[in-house]
Amino acid sequence: MTSPASPPASPPASPPASPIDRRTLLAGTATLAAVLAVPGPAFAASGDTKAIRAAAEAGKADSIKRLQDWIRHPGIAAENWRMDESCDYTMGLLKDAGFQMVTKMPTDGAPGIFATLDAGAKRTVGIYFMYDVKQVNPTEWATPPFDAVISEKPGYGTIITGRGAINQKGPEAAFLAALHAFKAAGEKLPVNLVLVAEGEEEIASPHFHQIVQAPAVLAALKECEGIIIPSAWQARNGGVEINLGAKGPLEFQLIASGERWGRGPKGDIHSSLHAQVESPVWHLVQALNTLVAADGHTPAIDGWFDNVRPLSPREKQLIALNAAASSEAEAKAAYGVKAWINDEPWQTSLERLASQPTVNIQGLVAGYTGPGGKTVLPGRAEAKLECRLVPNQTKAEAEAKLRAHLAKRGFGDIEVRVTGGYDPTETAENSRIIRAQQAVYARAGVTATLNPRLAGSWPGSVFTQPPVSLPAGQFGLGHGAGAHAPNEYFVIDSTNPKVEGLVGSTMGFVDFLYEMAAIS
Amino acid sequence: MTSPASPPASPPASPPASPIDRRTLLAGTATLAAVLAVPGPAFAASGDTKAIRAAAEAGKADSIKRLQDWIRHPGIAAENWRMDESCDYTMGLLKDAGFQMVTKMPTDGAPGIFATLDAGAKRTVGIYFMYDVKQVNPTEWATPPFDAVISEKPGYGTIITGRGAINQKGPEAAFLAALHAFKAAGEKLPVNLVLVAEGEEEIASPHFHQIVQAPAVLAALKECEGIIIPSAWQARNGGVEINLGAKGPLEFQLIASGERWGRGPKGDIHSSLHAQVESPVWHLVQALNTLVAADGHTPAIDGWFDNVRPLSPREKQLIALNAAASSEAEAKAAYGVKAWINDEPWQTSLERLASQPTVNIQGLVAGYTGPGGKTVLPGRAEAKLECRLVPNQTKAEAEAKLRAHLAKRGFGDIEVRVTGGYDPTETAENSRIIRAQQAVYARAGVTATLNPRLAGSWPGSVFTQPPVSLPAGQFGLGHGAGAHAPNEYFVIDSTNPKVEGLVGSTMGFVDFLYEMAAIS
Repeated sequence: MTSPASPPASPPASPPASPIDRRTLLAGTATLAAVLAVPGPAFAASGDTKAIRAAAEAGKADSIKRLQDWIRHPGIAAENWRMDESCDYTMGLLKDAGFQMVTKMPTDGAPGIFATLDAGAKRTVGIYFMYDVKQVNPTEWATPPFDAVISEKPGYGTIITGRGAINQKGPEAAFLAALHAFKAAGEKLPVNLVLVAEGEEEIASPHFHQIVQAPAVLAALKECEGIIIPSAWQARNGGVEINLGAKGPLEFQLIASGERWGRGPKGDIHSSLHAQVESPVWHLVQALNTLVAADGHTPAIDGWFDNVRPLSPREKQLIALNAAASSEAEAKAAYGVKAWINDEPWQTSLERLASQPTVNIQGLVAGYTGPGGKTVLPGRAEAKLECRLVPNQTKAEAEAKLRAHLAKRGFGDIEVRVTGGYDPTETAENSRIIRAQQAVYARAGVTATLNPRLAGSWPGSVFTQPPVSLPAGQFGLGHGAGAHAPNEYFVIDSTNPKVEGLVGSTMGFVDFLYEMAAIS
Repeated sequence: MTSPASPPASPPASPPASPIDRRTLLAGTATLAAVLAVPGPAFAASGDTKAIRAAAEAGKADSIKRLQDWIRHPGIAAENWRMDESCDYTMGLLKDAGFQMVTKMPTDGAPGIFATLDAGAKRTVGIYFMYDVKQVNPTEWATPPFDAVISEKPGYGTIITGRGAINQKGPEAAFLAALHAFKAAGEKLPVNLVLVAEGEEEIASPHFHQIVQAPAVLAALKECEGIIIPSAWQARNGGVEINLGAKGPLEFQLIASGERWGRGPKGDIHSSLHAQVESPVWHLVQALNTLVAADGHTPAIDGWFDNVRPLSPREKQLIALNAAASSEAEAKAAYGVKAWINDEPWQTSLERLASQPTVNIQGLVAGYTGPGGKTVLPGRAEAKLECRLVPNQTKAEAEAKLRAHLAKRGFGDIEVRVTGGYDPTETAENSRIIRAQQAVYARAGVTATLNPRLAGSWPGSVFTQPPVSLPAGQFGLGHGAGAHAPNEYFVIDSTNPKVEGLVGSTMGFVDFLYEMAAIS
């Protein structure tokens, strides 16, 4: 991050430096999108892209069918539901797309996949797939979430609706369609591919390192120029973000209980007894209260800022560009927020967004949670939290400091149940995968904003940190939304001239692979 | 409470000074009950109790049917469900039992009832009925909660299961059965009756004062010696408690929201945004944290103890007797508690239970409350609390102090939604209704423990405070349990020789009315 880097292909415009992570980015950026002045024309890369595009168009029906079938074969890690079946199905898709070696990788959780495609090329590119999807509540969906229904969405075009449509099967299917198009056009792939897939992305990738660090996988990844996960993040103005890094999460629950504490009741008892019996709820409230400063947001866990690295001048420069090119008013409206922390101006607040670690309460559950009240003294209280870590904090450091902090203050009995997390990730602006993205986006006439650090998280650190130590990021054209929400969709045919559909997204990957082969 | 009083009819034995309020007392006392050495024989009051008992036995089938039908005509104030119908049904029961005047009393909430029975007697006794019942979750019940199914319960006898069976229709039906028995036996009632009923007891009696303080009602109550609510609290050893008072509750919710605060988000947004957006959840946690001292239980609301009156020597004496006669180990086992606050010994902890006001968190609800976590920054957080107030605190004082305390500390935006409450209540040990209870219990061979103050609450203060200013308490033999819980029941025929069934409960009221007429 300290080496000089090429400036973005075009002045960073909107979307603003999005704080929303990959999982939920689309809803936000779509809302926040400003209008791009001059949308670019078509792709213009190496190789016979005309023949490949013709093949992609000819194979479109098959590609759509492939995505629909994939959505119809779900696996939900949070429910440990159909993981093996979903993994096997994904492996079949990889074989069909031309991967010569496709191996199932067992882990302590859901299995992953290791696959390679040797094109006899000089360079090798890494690809990261997730095959699991988020849970669904079918009653909230307009069409059954695993039916992959095709319909028209006014202002967007033809869409496929289904769980995983944008997160992440749609973009991944577009990538596979690119491989099919190469094959159908009789064109050799310009790079070799190493693909790793996991089935636990939606539960914060607790076993992904077991796949990535397996000796054969590690050796293969070491040959790569970098690794990307296919995505489709075009806003309504066609613009995309290139994220140079992301915060790392530490997801955990704090659970106070009479049982563990040895004080207070085991279960819920009559509330009047609080006159002689302690309350695990107050115990939890007091513990929580020590985690942030009096300002209500600055983490106050002992030693939390020891390894926090301030923003570099270049990072500040990028944020300034993003601040100037994006609308504070639109962001406030999108989030339903009247004021930023400390009433800071937009640019300062975006610096805060990128640079500050957080300790957030996602949820509180104790005692009676229905309407009105109920006279109980609860035996248990739970807070669901997540920290977002910035370089050079690590998940292990954060967890150890949290535990020590609580223990030191008499809250050692409170259970710290860590459910997931990983380190922050960073990729150099001058790495090939970043520069290749800039070149492809520029050729596609798409404004690509450089975001120094996503405030959200993705498990890029498993690649960017030792022992793998690869540049890693997201890449892709196209659009979809509704990740983690009802009616998740992916655009097949776009009626918005600034946004690509399935074939455009496919051709984006084609161009990216050519660019990765050619870039200096 | 300061005047000398007669000692309890027999040495206070178990159950221990119960902290459980009327609503849920039975489960607790049944569990805690110790064995009474010498159970007494039958009733021996004035009047022709033999004829009345014969009439009560003869009318038993009718009395059972009456209770079943009443349970089958429920009204649930918390759901504003069938309040008018339930009120009308109860009025019919009163007319049938001999009340000459039965008037519906509209309030700003559910209607109440004012009824009088003029027996041409010298003294008048007040009776308090509630006709509403607690909510039900039918899936938790062994038989439908409004079917009033009769069955055998091993160790107890024949029971009626249904919502309201013990809380409060069973005991109230036993009282009505007493009036029917007087009539059937051709015996004149020894006292006149003034009855007030409400349909909002289960939501903390928010409009009961509108009934009680209506001029005609107030005038009628002024003629009374005191007022009782029929109850049936015999423990397995036959023992009962006579409560000389109860704490008063202040039930409320504290709700922090971005909407009201003007900071933080309006709705739930992506958790990563906490780096630039404040959290209503932290805001609530910080507000809550100011409400109790560092010890985690002593109320820390400004001025909270200004009017708290310490225990009198007599109150301490009664607690000492109760402590000596009850089992600390059984209480700890019943509550699932290993240690009392401050690791205090039993007697000290019972003094604390009676004397200390509390601020209790009944429940916490914010953001994501399902299994695991979900990356949201919630727009709203709610804590459900209740304070228990002791003499001479008042509900109005407590509410005002709570609001001032929060406002002074920058939490004035947090909504304080008061849903119910009333002042603490006290009745003098030497009042006629207390001494009459002692006499009746003694004649029935029942150990009656004098409890200086229930840690729980009942709306006695509406009677004991101006403008009514009457002694008020609970009275009754018999047994049932499951108030506010599934499978609530009332014992019709007791197989436990120490505990009365429906007829015994009926005869307890007969004797009580005779005693109220005769007592000096």
